[in-house]
Amino acid sequence: MDHVVGIQYTSSYSPTKRVTFAEGDFNGLPAHVWPKNASRDDSGVVSIAGVSLPELAEEFGTPLFVVDEDDFRSRCRALARAYGAPERVHYASKAFLTRAIARWVAEEGLSLDVASYGELRVALAADFPAERITAHGNNKQAEYLQLCVESGVEHVVLDSFQEIEELAVEAERQGKVQPVLVRVTPGVDAHTHEFIATSHEDQKFGFSLATGAAFKAALEAHEHPSLNLRGLHCHVGSQVFDADGFSLAAERLMGLLSKLQQELGTKLPVLDLGGGYGIAYTENDTPLDVEKVAKDLISRVRAQAEVLGIEAPEIMVEPGRAIAGPSTVTVYEVGTIKDVNVTDEHTRRYIAVNGGMSDNIRPALYQAEYDARVVSRLCDGEVTDTRVVGSHCESGDILIADERFPNDIRPGDLLALAATGAYCFAMTSRYNMFSRPAVVSVNDGEARLMVRRETIEDFLALEG
Amino acid sequence: MDHVVGIQYTSSYSPTKRVTFAEGDFNGLPAHVWPKNASRDDSGVVSIAGVSLPELAEEFGTPLFVVDEDDFRSRCRALARAYGAPERVHYASKAFLTRAIARWVAEEGLSLDVASYGELRVALAADFPAERITAHGNNKQAEYLQLCVESGVEHVVLDSFQEIEELAVEAERQGKVQPVLVRVTPGVDAHTHEFIATSHEDQKFGFSLATGAAFKAALEAHEHPSLNLRGLHCHVGSQVFDADGFSLAAERLMGLLSKLQQELGTKLPVLDLGGGYGIAYTENDTPLDVEKVAKDLISRVRAQAEVLGIEAPEIMVEPGRAIAGPSTVTVYEVGTIKDVNVTDEHTRRYIAVNGGMSDNIRPALYQAEYDARVVSRLCDGEVTDTRVVGSHCESGDILIADERFPNDIRPGDLLALAATGAYCFAMTSRYNMFSRPAVVSVNDGEARLMVRRETIEDFLALEG
Repeated sequence: MDHVVGIQYTSSYSPTKRVTFAEGDFNGLPAHVWPKNASRDDSGVVSIAGVSLPELAEEFGTPLFVVDEDDFRSRCRALARAYGAPERVHYASKAFLTRAIARWVAEEGLSLDVASYGELRVALAADFPAERITAHGNNKQAEYLQLCVESGVEHVVLDSFQEIEELAVEAERQGKVQPVLVRVTPGVDAHTHEFIATSHEDQKFGFSLATGAAFKAALEAHEHPSLNLRGLHCHVGSQVFDADGFSLAAERLMGLLSKLQQELGTKLPVLDLGGGYGIAYTENDTPLDVEKVAKDLISRVRAQAEVLGIEAPEIMVEPGRAIAGPSTVTVYEVGTIKDVNVTDEHTRRYIAVNGGMSDNIRPALYQAEYDARVVSRLCDGEVTDTRVVGSHCESGDILIADERFPNDIRPGDLLALAATGAYCFAMTSRYNMFSRPAVVSVNDGEARLMVRRETIEDFLALEG
Repeated sequence: MDHVVGIQYTSSYSPTKRVTFAEGDFNGLPAHVWPKNASRDDSGVVSIAGVSLPELAEEFGTPLFVVDEDDFRSRCRALARAYGAPERVHYASKAFLTRAIARWVAEEGLSLDVASYGELRVALAADFPAERITAHGNNKQAEYLQLCVESGVEHVVLDSFQEIEELAVEAERQGKVQPVLVRVTPGVDAHTHEFIATSHEDQKFGFSLATGAAFKAALEAHEHPSLNLRGLHCHVGSQVFDADGFSLAAERLMGLLSKLQQELGTKLPVLDLGGGYGIAYTENDTPLDVEKVAKDLISRVRAQAEVLGIEAPEIMVEPGRAIAGPSTVTVYEVGTIKDVNVTDEHTRRYIAVNGGMSDNIRPALYQAEYDARVVSRLCDGEVTDTRVVGSHCESGDILIADERFPNDIRPGDLLALAATGAYCFAMTSRYNMFSRPAVVSVNDGEARLMVRRETIEDFLALEG
């Protein structure tokens, strides 16, 4: 670095940090973090599915989301096998949804979970079969409920007593019977970050199991001739690594299911256990073994059914991140590099890239960590404390807070963050009038533009 | 409430909470938080500048941003007076920028501060005079620097040694001399939230005063014939309430200015002290008195100049939030309402509105607080612990975490959050395929659509 000036100043710097890279292995691409078809050639250039990332950056610009279609589809198939049938697996579209992605999910035979009117619209625009769509939302508005019934979605997941009435009236108005599930908060704490935990009961979703609200809601739903109560739903959290939470929640729901079947004298064939399977964002993470989780869940539900003397329900699940997350990388160009002395003894290198919190809000919002590598060449400098920041006019615009990177990363290098398939493009903002990046899918040596880059003209076109 | 079911369960509920509303005053509109021209009539309907919010919601839908043009312009004028000339005040466009807003700023004679290529493009598209634009950014890329020089912006604020070289080359290429300021980190801690503090030196912006990096950068900039060093810049933080930080930073920069003038034998006429003036988001906040801050700053800089035996520089400032923040409210419609027993003794009411973290990420990102009122009628219920949540599929989608609201708020009521003019629309995302809300400005009994609501078709049009 030519233009680095040391700074001697006290700050909030903490010498305790995560050290991921021993010298020399910065050029690896950890298989449990990077897309299945990512590889680096001898010159250091990283390709995905045979398509060079530097060439994609040249053609489509940066920042750029690159999706490994085969990685995405492989995870669909692995989950389909694990749960015994593809339609039992509902891809949670909130993680990452475009029409192309909806078509992949449809082609793999999976079902889809939507969480809003907009997501349902996009799914239908991709001709996703409505009879394989489950509709969520804590505050479903009239147009959303109307479209759910009109299009004939598989299940509406009831989230409040208000909604039971509103949906019943809407289905009756359309002369239809709408299949429904009741969302239950089972009181299971999945030990995860507060903002993405949905297990505790001081929250906006669902009906409490413990208080009897869920039981009451199911009875109410059953009473409406325009609703067809099909079973129960729960979701214990996001980015969960402790599989016990899923099993415990399943057992609790089985108890309620049995009680309801007895009370109603009818079978409730569906137990939807939501998603939340943790993936590896960094080399040190171990992703949840979804096949083991599936096996455990299925056997525990069967055993529980036997104990309760009922038929085992069909298990449905809703993974989003576990399918989309590892499939995608975000490619940035390195710009300004600065060294800052954060204490008398410690220097931190700041590497700025040409994106930031507008294309990935997760580090700022959830203190999420990511794995980043230079993808345009090999690096072999000594490792040094490094922070990767974005280009927004905000000091909290940090992508990687505290890493050990080689000191030969240079302006013009392409740096990619892995595992950005879930909740990155989906949460892109217009902050600082940064336009949403393009999304490209790659498969078998070919690249396809999935979403074009937004332009300033797109923003201006909205203005009156 | 018809459909409320109590829940008895332990949770992370804390009985210590902010209590804002005594019974009965929920119908007030605190003047230091709400737009200048907001008023409530006897029937309880809130209007801004004579335009009824329920009528705007009916015409343009919700969520809806409503901007009080006169409030915005009045704050421009107050700041212009406080600093002695309108062009010394640079509106920080990152807070909230549209062409219409740029035109208001231009008409009031203020200058503009942009922080990205996109913001500069929008400003120029509004015919904002380039000679009143200051250009920021920690990682200015080639196209941005090129446009700065081409359009002839007033100042480029240099942020790294790399950038000094790049800008000098670009200006030379265009055969121009570009006026510049050097961004200095003065080592002043403005005591604010970590994510929005830019005073400490373990950060991506600027050159350190303490280490001599700022001095060195100024000398380098001065040496380039294609750059015209005009002065220094600093920014001590955001949403700052302690004015001492501004004065201390000013005094430190004056020392450097004097040293540089001596070294270079030339006058540096500009001292740009950035923005960061705290505004009131809740009734309990006291906004920073910007006129008093201006008076203090001007007199302290003059006194310091006298001590140093130099001519006092022209002071420039860059308020964004202090101009745009209080001008705007976000109008939502109330949907699902639920009561949750968070402990055996305590109930929390969840009020869901038809927006959330996609139109206001600040509560989730910065734990920001807001003042919310029903604007479609009077409420007179007993106050009860309440949380206002959005409609996103995420338990962290909270707009107001912990308030005391009347218990007669009902589905269909219009609820508005005040002081949403800064960093709300500017940071809108597409999460859950929620489309960006419309923005309407009101003035003197008339409403104008400033930005139309996005549609699902807008999203789909980007797909290949």
